[in-house]
Amino acid sequence: MVSSREEVTRLIIASKVRKGLKWQQVAEVVGLSKEFVTAGCLGQMTFNKTQAEALGDLFELPDEAVAWLQIVPYKGALPTAVPTDPLIYRWYEIVSVYGTTIKELIHEEFGDGIMSAIDFSMDIQREPDPKGDRVKVLLSGKFLPYKSY
Amino acid sequence: MVSSREEVTRLIIASKVRKGLKWQQVAEVVGLSKEFVTAGCLGQMTFNKTQAEALGDLFELPDEAVAWLQIVPYKGALPTAVPTDPLIYRWYEIVSVYGTTIKELIHEEFGDGIMSAIDFSMDIQREPDPKGDRVKVLLSGKFLPYKSY
Amino acid sequence: MVSSREEVTRLIIASKVRKGLKWQQVAEVVGLSKEFVTAGCLGQMTFNKTQAEALGDLFELPDEAVAWLQIVPYKGALPTAVPTDPLIYRWYEIVSVYGTTIKELIHEEFGDGIMSAIDFSMDIQREPDPKGDRVKVLLSGKFLPYKSY
Amino acid sequence: MVSSREEVTRLIIASKVRKGLKWQQVAEVVGLSKEFVTAGCLGQMTFNKTQAEALGDLFELPDEAVAWLQIVPYKGALPTAVPTDPLIYRWYEIVSVYGTTIKELIHEEFGDGIMSAIDFSMDIQREPDPKGDRVKVLLSGKFLPYKSY
Amino acid sequence: MVSSREEVTRLIIASKVRKGLKWQQVAEVVGLSKEFVTAGCLGQMTFNKTQAEALGDLFELPDEAVAWLQIVPYKGALPTAVPTDPLIYRWYEIVSVYGTTIKELIHEEFGDGIMSAIDFSMDIQREPDPKGDRVKVLLSGKFLPYKSY
Amino acid sequence: MVSSREEVTRLIIASKVRKGLKWQQVAEVVGLSKEFVTAGCLGQMTFNKTQAEALGDLFELPDEAVAWLQIVPYKGALPTAVPTDPLIYRWYEIVSVYGTTIKELIHEEFGDGIMSAIDFSMDIQREPDPKGDRVKVLLSGKFLPYKSY
Amino acid sequence: MVSSREEVTRLIIASKVRKGLKWQQVAEVVGLSKEFVTAGCLGQMTFNKTQAEALGDLFELPDEAVAWLQIVPYKGALPTAVPTDPLIYRWYEIVSVYGTTIKELIHEEFGDGIMSAIDFSMDIQREPDPKGDRVKVLLSGKFLPYKSY
Amino acid sequence: MVSSREEVTRLIIASKVRKGLKWQQVAEVVGLSKEFVTAGCLGQMTFNKTQAEALGDLFELPDEAVAWLQIVPYKGALPTAVPTDPLIYRWYEIVSVYGTTIKELIHEEFGDGIMSAIDFSMDIQREPDPKGDRVKVLLSGKFLPYKSY
Amino acid sequence: MVSSREEVTRLIIASKVRKGLKWQQVAEVVGLSKEFVTAGCLGQMTFNKTQAEALGDLFELPDEAVAWLQIVPYKGALPTAVPTDPLIYRWYEIVSVYGTTIKELIHEEFGDGIMSAIDFSMDIQREPDPKGDRVKVLLSGKFLPYKSY
Amino acid sequence: MVSSREEVTRLIIASKVRKGLKWQQVAEVVGLSKEFVTAGCLGQMTFNKTQAEALGDLFELPDEAVAWLQIVPYKGALPTAVPTDPLIYRWYEIVSVYGTTIKELIHEEFGDGIMSAIDFSMDIQREPDPKGDRVKVLLSGKFLPYKSY
Repeated sequence: MVSSREEVTRLIIASKVRKGLKWQQVAEVVGLSKEFVTAGCLGQMTFNKTQAEALGDLFELPDEAVAWLQIVPYKGALPTAVPTDPLIYRWYEIVSVYGTTIKELIHEEFGDGIMSAIDFSMDIQREPDPKGDRVKVLLSGKFLPYKSY
Repeated sequence: MVSSREEVTRLIIASKVRKGLKWQQVAEVVGLSKEFVTAGCLGQMTFNKTQAEALGDLFELPDEAVAWLQIVPYKGALPTAVPTDPLIYRWYEIVSVYGTTIKELIHEEFGDGIMSAIDFSMDIQREPDPKGDRVKVLLSGKFLPYKSY
Repeated sequence: MVSSREEVTRLIIASKVRKGLKWQQVAEVVGLSKEFVTAGCLGQMTFNKTQAEALGDLFELPDEAVAWLQIVPYKGALPTAVPTDPLIYRWYEIVSVYGTTIKELIHEEFGDGIMSAIDFSMDIQREPDPKGDRVKVLLSGKFLPYKSY
Repeated sequence: MVSSREEVTRLIIASKVRKGLKWQQVAEVVGLSKEFVTAGCLGQMTFNKTQAEALGDLFELPDEAVAWLQIVPYKGALPTAVPTDPLIYRWYEIVSVYGTTIKELIHEEFGDGIMSAIDFSMDIQREPDPKGDRVKVLLSGKFLPYKSY
Repeated sequence: MVSSREEVTRLIIASKVRKGLKWQQVAEVVGLSKEFVTAGCLGQMTFNKTQAEALGDLFELPDEAVAWLQIVPYKGALPTAVPTDPLIYRWYEIVSVYGTTIKELIHEEFGDGIMSAIDFSMDIQREPDPKGDRVKVLLSGKFLPYKSY
Repeated sequence: MVSSREEVTRLIIASKVRKGLKWQQVAEVVGLSKEFVTAGCLGQMTFNKTQAEALGDLFELPDEAVAWLQIVPYKGALPTAVPTDPLIYRWYEIVSVYGTTIKELIHEEFGDGIMSAIDFSMDIQREPDPKGDRVKVLLSGKFLPYKSY
Repeated sequence: MVSSREEVTRLIIASKVRKGLKWQQVAEVVGLSKEFVTAGCLGQMTFNKTQAEALGDLFELPDEAVAWLQIVPYKGALPTAVPTDPLIYRWYEIVSVYGTTIKELIHEEFGDGIMSAIDFSMDIQREPDPKGDRVKVLLSGKFLPYKSY
Repeated sequence: MVSSREEVTRLIIASKVRKGLKWQQVAEVVGLSKEFVTAGCLGQMTFNKTQAEALGDLFELPDEAVAWLQIVPYKGALPTAVPTDPLIYRWYEIVSVYGTTIKELIHEEFGDGIMSAIDFSMDIQREPDPKGDRVKVLLSGKFLPYKSY
Repeated sequence: MVSSREEVTRLIIASKVRKGLKWQQVAEVVGLSKEFVTAGCLGQMTFNKTQAEALGDLFELPDEAVAWLQIVPYKGALPTAVPTDPLIYRWYEIVSVYGTTIKELIHEEFGDGIMSAIDFSMDIQREPDPKGDRVKVLLSGKFLPYKSY
Repeated sequence: MVSSREEVTRLIIASKVRKGLKWQQVAEVVGLSKEFVTAGCLGQMTFNKTQAEALGDLFELPDEAVAWLQIVPYKGALPTAVPTDPLIYRWYEIVSVYGTTIKELIHEEFGDGIMSAIDFSMDIQREPDPKGDRVKVLLSGKFLPYKSY
């Protein structure tokens, strides 16, 4: 019996290791961006029936796992508040070092409010560079203003 | 006597409020991007002599404050490990929800290593959108591979 | 010199104690709901020039304090992650005990997404009740869906 | 053997996924509000014998699980003090940003005391809105005054 | 200028040390129990005008301090979540060691609900004992039941 | 094989749920107060051979479980430093709000020292009250003075 | 005005630095062990009138400081839960590494109970050793048994 | 398969409970102090081949467990940074209350440096006393000086 | 089924204990430094196919484990933010005591930037010394400068 | 009045900024390594009279500051348990990622024990490298074995 979304994530990752699949391939099967599909397979997003069944076929998941993929999960993928993994920590460091800068510049341009993390998309690309290739990340989030009432 | 970089930050912010300056204007005076200049004024980056003196003139800082701006600061701009400010929290949420996704996709493309937060730049822009303008952020960090030895 | 928004909050509260004002009266002077005005006076929201000047007159604030009220503050009003004040703790307890319930019911009705805390309003009223009056709180937040991309 | 209430919660959720039930339907079977029933099924509330047996029939629970549903549980549904799930976090953010405001306004109206989280009810509804539907939440808690003694 | 309730607490304690007063004497002046009066003087409870003025006379407080005593304070008297002071820690230890016992026995007698910490009183007495005097504490809190709705 | 005291606690609770026993009945079988017996069954106290065997008979425990009941356990019954369960939290709140008051009043009466949590007993009773029954708790702990040396 | 015991500690330490005193000399003036006197001067213990006045003369303290020394302080001398100072950390490490050992051996000898940290004394001596002198510490605490009731 | 040192500790404790052994007896079998042997059996110290085999015979451990006893373990025996068990907490309290005192007195006698927790031994004895027996603990640690370089 | 990298680490360690292997021997089989190979076997680094298969042969790992060794792991090897193991704690203490010193000296020599923990190598050697052998550790990390942009 | 070692650190740093001194120059004046002198100036080490007076002359410190430099300080230079400064964090990351590796390799070579952080020295050098200069750090700490007793 598959009794939680975490179990589905473990099934997917173990199957991916066994089959030597790449996330880009998984994304093509589902027909969405690699960023969204990976997040969903890692237990952070919800798939519709067609998408979940495509994943079920690809990863040879039991029917119950396919059902779980269509249920909204409890989100938050990191085991500690300050991440220990060096790659993920660098992102936390960007928030720590540049957080107040980001805040100042968005408020200067838009006023009081936030950049949405829900109406949001992300695109990760390799940027060739003779001094060493770079990771280029494009984030796009709707600005949501606080309004007085 | 100016006895710490935090004090310089407070002097700059109070002066900016009094004078009604914008970070974009400050950046133009210094001749660097608004992202770097704001981070520096908020105590996260180091300026060279010319840049520091330009800031000193603009914000009417005492000489000692101008000296502090040229000293590498203890970085980290947030008062708590999990930020409470809604705008900054959304960035932390992106790390929490998408962190493992970012990790998977960068490793898939580049192998084991990290995206540098030091050889790094950021560009924040308004992206007009009929359904509500968006905040567009471009992050660019050099990929640094782990090598076996 | 007024060097931070926290100082403005202290000035306002001390002035309110001295003058014996009520938040309802303050709200009427500003012309907004008592919920928004109180949050702003406690350093969580931003006022426009007219509103800030009205507050400056009412609380006899120095000009710099009036300037600070128009600057977006670093939000988050509680000194600890788990609040110690019994009234505020009861709200934290509601999140702790009912949090997963709220999540299930909103997802069941709306699908994956959140109830906005930005495009949001709150209304607090006394509800007379023969067995003891009740606090009635109406929260209204826009539903923001996660969309696949 | 069913050896804890957490196990009952897992059995209920897995059964709900398998059967494709909605909390609204579960609530109708039990004859209580969807808010109370969901909280109870998620291990936060206690059911009487009739209610527990109705749930046992609906979810095909073993007899011991039905017994557990009638035992007062150790409450608190979240895995971390600051919730990581974006939907639940927004509620925590409301407490963080508006907590002192709520405190001020309730004290202004009622004096020293709290809004009960025990003699308390909650009602969650969809509020249609041309600019995007809203989540409307009505909270009602008895005011309990501190009395001097 | 007296700008916070914490300052009033410091004024009261320093004055009490200077004058060599006992809390029992303070309580008699105010006309309430020593438990309530001490809690109030330590910044946890609210006094009415007459009581606050009596305290103002006794401790020679400025007028603003007397006003603050009538304002509901942000409660919570300990500097850390787990108290370091040995006397107070023993109480925390009782909660830690006996907490689940207290929960089981109250639920067995009363059903689901809590013992109120608001509609609550405490009485601390010396209990003479030939093997060493004891501290006898009587706690009385109204039982508040959870009700289904 | 029973490999820890926590397992014994789980066996006792599951057996108690199955058999529908009350702690008061358990206490009568053992011949001690319900407070001590409950704490012991929940893994906080140690029983002698006769008491442990009586519990073994009542709950149909294996011999090894009876041996574990006679071993001093690692105490501390709560899963988090700040308890999330509302009933137990109210006790933590009493420590938080009244902790310094308790400290002041015990020191005023007894001088420097503590109220023992070891040479300690507790008695929990229902106190009928027309305005709603109350939980009456009597705590008695030996005063232990700090002595200079 | 001396407004807290922490201030008295700072006055004592600054005076001790200025005058080049040793704790052993301070102890002789007060007529108690160096362990108790040092703990008291660092804000952890209470002195009687004669002792406090002797300290007042020695350290040239104002009268209010002498009064504070006779008031029971809020104890706990370390700024963090896990101490960062290497000397004090070694003691924390002993508790961490040997804590369960100490527990087992005391229970084996005495049964369930604790070694008192109140009816307690400590003696710190230099133990000459050709391989490098040692710190010899003798701790003596009354055993306090848990008793069933 | 025995896959960690923690498992060996569980096997030893369960076997000790079953066989009714005392640590003093275990120490005699191994030929070392009861303090060292207990710490080793609880997973904090390393045994040589002869010692490990003696323990294997006594506790009827599988060969792999005997191998694990000879491997240096990851040390630290407590489940939380601040221990919840009352006996162990009293030791933490000694560090908290007397920590700065211990630091001052060792520095006064020895200069800058630490008392080693590695070149260290401990001896726990019962000290008969007509007013109640005492736990006498002798700690001996080499002083290690910081040297300038 | 091998379902996580942690499981591979457990398999390797248990096999190493059973076979009595040394890390130096493992490193020779793989053909890399003992530092890198140990880190990889403990789940912190990634191996290529040849290296992973050599480890699979040596430790008799199942095929899936060999696949996992080639997947980038979630890094971070310690169970708590402040390590409890005395050997590892000493390194944390070096960071705590010398951290700001290291920062000052590197910035003085190189300007603003960091010493890379990615383009990094470590070499641990025994340094014979008549007063007691020493652990000699050589760390080498590329300096990465912050550049203004 | 200089009332704490932290104040001395602030005086030294402010003076160093004003005078544009380098740590290397400070070390030459004192006649010790730059590593030790910097650590001492930052409040982590103790100086003898001659060294302290040399620092007093160089930084134009008041006499009391010179006295404080000869007093053993409370060590620990970082404001948070997990450092936020990127340069210092990289060192924490080395402990986090390589900690268990360091432990395994030292134990393999030396047996159970630690590398001393007291009988310890550090040397930081620039290592020229055509691919970008490196920071070379040599750590040397005496091995201290655990011995059975």
